[in-house]
Amino acid sequence: MASKPRNERRQFLQKAGLGAALTGIASTLSTPIWAKTIPQELTATLPAGMRQPGSEFSNYGQPSTHEQGVIRWISANSAASGNGVSWTPLHDLQGTITPNGLHYERHHNGVPAIDPAQHQLLIDGLVNQPLSFDIKSLLRYPMQSRTCFIECGGNSNSGWRTNPIQTQAGYAHGLVSNSEWTGIPVKLLLQEAGIKPEAKWVIAEGADGASLNISMPLEKLMDDALLALYQNGERLRPENGYPLRLVLPGWEGILNVKWLRQLRLTDQPLMSRDETAQYTELQTDGKARQFTFLMEAKSLITSPSLGMMLPDNPATYQVTGLAWSGRGKITRVEVSADGGETWLDAELQGPILAKAFTRFNLPWHWQGEYAILQSRATDETGYVQPTRETLLDNRGKHGFFHYNAIVSWEITEEGDINHVYGF
Amino acid sequence: MASKPRNERRQFLQKAGLGAALTGIASTLSTPIWAKTIPQELTATLPAGMRQPGSEFSNYGQPSTHEQGVIRWISANSAASGNGVSWTPLHDLQGTITPNGLHYERHHNGVPAIDPAQHQLLIDGLVNQPLSFDIKSLLRYPMQSRTCFIECGGNSNSGWRTNPIQTQAGYAHGLVSNSEWTGIPVKLLLQEAGIKPEAKWVIAEGADGASLNISMPLEKLMDDALLALYQNGERLRPENGYPLRLVLPGWEGILNVKWLRQLRLTDQPLMSRDETAQYTELQTDGKARQFTFLMEAKSLITSPSLGMMLPDNPATYQVTGLAWSGRGKITRVEVSADGGETWLDAELQGPILAKAFTRFNLPWHWQGEYAILQSRATDETGYVQPTRETLLDNRGKHGFFHYNAIVSWEITEEGDINHVYGF
Repeated sequence: MASKPRNERRQFLQKAGLGAALTGIASTLSTPIWAKTIPQELTATLPAGMRQPGSEFSNYGQPSTHEQGVIRWISANSAASGNGVSWTPLHDLQGTITPNGLHYERHHNGVPAIDPAQHQLLIDGLVNQPLSFDIKSLLRYPMQSRTCFIECGGNSNSGWRTNPIQTQAGYAHGLVSNSEWTGIPVKLLLQEAGIKPEAKWVIAEGADGASLNISMPLEKLMDDALLALYQNGERLRPENGYPLRLVLPGWEGILNVKWLRQLRLTDQPLMSRDETAQYTELQTDGKARQFTFLMEAKSLITSPSLGMMLPDNPATYQVTGLAWSGRGKITRVEVSADGGETWLDAELQGPILAKAFTRFNLPWHWQGEYAILQSRATDETGYVQPTRETLLDNRGKHGFFHYNAIVSWEITEEGDINHVYGF
Repeated sequence: MASKPRNERRQFLQKAGLGAALTGIASTLSTPIWAKTIPQELTATLPAGMRQPGSEFSNYGQPSTHEQGVIRWISANSAASGNGVSWTPLHDLQGTITPNGLHYERHHNGVPAIDPAQHQLLIDGLVNQPLSFDIKSLLRYPMQSRTCFIECGGNSNSGWRTNPIQTQAGYAHGLVSNSEWTGIPVKLLLQEAGIKPEAKWVIAEGADGASLNISMPLEKLMDDALLALYQNGERLRPENGYPLRLVLPGWEGILNVKWLRQLRLTDQPLMSRDETAQYTELQTDGKARQFTFLMEAKSLITSPSLGMMLPDNPATYQVTGLAWSGRGKITRVEVSADGGETWLDAELQGPILAKAFTRFNLPWHWQGEYAILQSRATDETGYVQPTRETLLDNRGKHGFFHYNAIVSWEITEEGDINHVYGF
């Protein structure tokens, strides 16, 4: 069902008085909600799967054929080979880990086929001793694991459009994924090469057809950057940088250079295409936002969300979603059912890790009233996720990158779900 | 190269004086270890992958073709369809998450093909109101995530053999995997059915061809058991119980019933095949160990390990592995290079989670001497992983289940690696 016009929304919400409808989890414990008493046919015959042997063991498992709809949605540029993105279906997932097959992709010229036996990482520029490393050698270095999100700077950029896009949660906001990355602290390798005092920046280059290259402050690489070889336990997938990628926890996706072949230390940034013509934004005052490395706090309700519906009322629905911040840990996620008039704290699922997805949950008792569901994240620095209105006030109406405003899901009286811009 | 005879090992170790060779991580920082200065041909031409567009986006990613050897190793009973195991290749993995395609399998009669639209979970027996739940309904319940290991009670059982098996680490000890499971606290569903006071046990049954059923104390289900629907973010894989499995953190694998169809509350255990003829052990005193639910603390060096070799000396190698305990958190892992004469504390990779894999790391400077590498885990209850000698003294020589003794890797002077039983 179509959205209510903006001017009608507030009166519907006021009528419904929804703040009080966000209830505690205890309300679900007393009485059966969706269970049925056992129908006789269930106990009379065994299911088909129990009357015959099942299929054999497998060397490498795959998802159920009943889950074939759970995919990365591809949005590629047909005029430029291998240029585009594929989106993680956040609305179909639970927990916090993104399985490797569904980690989002952003490629500028496709996925290169790299033979790991041939691949070399070069460290040169302002170093005492330029070095090259093959994969076999790198696998012998000390490694660390770090669970963190990687988010494309262009994630959620449909939020800049005049009209709210009617797309499922993951297919509008799923250029972000969360994995356990394991690799070598970049600091170790830079120290082996020996850093000259005048080195301030590092130019990282990938071994793809786009020769993607981009500048980053040396300071970040000496802090928590990893040269990742493993993702969620196994070696990187080709589309995520096999055999090597940079992981810069909390920083813009493009800096997490895939298929990494070179780190060149310099005294200034390169001013490459992807830090000038792209990933840079003209502001209303005529200045440009550039080198916007940090991904600010953000949250998203993944269920209920567009593409689902609320079939029953009155009924309790679990509001669940994800929050993350490039600045550190998420400390609070609030949920509103009345478009931001009143808020309740959601439960945060532990362990809460810095610069990683945090799952939030809150039961919501719906009685068929009109509602607008929103979530709002706060991180450990006190930064609060902005409304769309505030974001546009600060950044103008023609942005493209770093859109992190509160997302609003309109619930109609029929239980349909639409994307709206507040009310 | 073949192992040294047992009576020669101690004198080799004493000669080498190896305790001192386990060094701190700082020793790797000062000078290039495996890197080479950059050969000219690397800078003269671009790699092939950079001279052409790469491959296109994919809806669901797969591992690199260069990693096709990283598989579950299948060990199935050819005389009984779908009966056997497949092993997680722990020696090929890093970090702590087991990717879904490589989670170990233990099936008694294969993997049933279950249509989630037809599947029902029944809760009956000593309840006030027997209930059935379809998957669609279950997906609307409040969920929690829990990262934990699941380990088969028969994991590592080759340790009971008279001679040490010469098999890669994961293919002897990889009936254990670690995932982020997401699902419904079982407690919620049992409370909806209403638990009668005389209920003490629960019989869980899977919807597979073996109709696998097994008894477990009600108390555990009311504690931290999950009815899991998701594994590492996505819906369960068929071989891991799609669409539903029990997860009993820290308890024997067989209790984590896959393809769960029924929970029947009773006042006593069922005494089914898999808790009497199997998963029960006659002891030397004529009594039997039965209902040995808890998986005790254990650790394993995954690298260096059998099937690898140490190519260079003198050189620094990273000793890394996994530790876990069904009782709670791992608090300490010690590593020995002299067969248990002297020990050094390894670094534990955080976050350290209860009943989950903890990765440990320690750099080891090897100079070509004879060595026996071991790891020893301690958990938060103070339980210390036993030597094989102690385990056999306590449990007899003819055991099969719950083998958690220290594993010894012999390093020959040539850098070959063998499995030995201490010295």
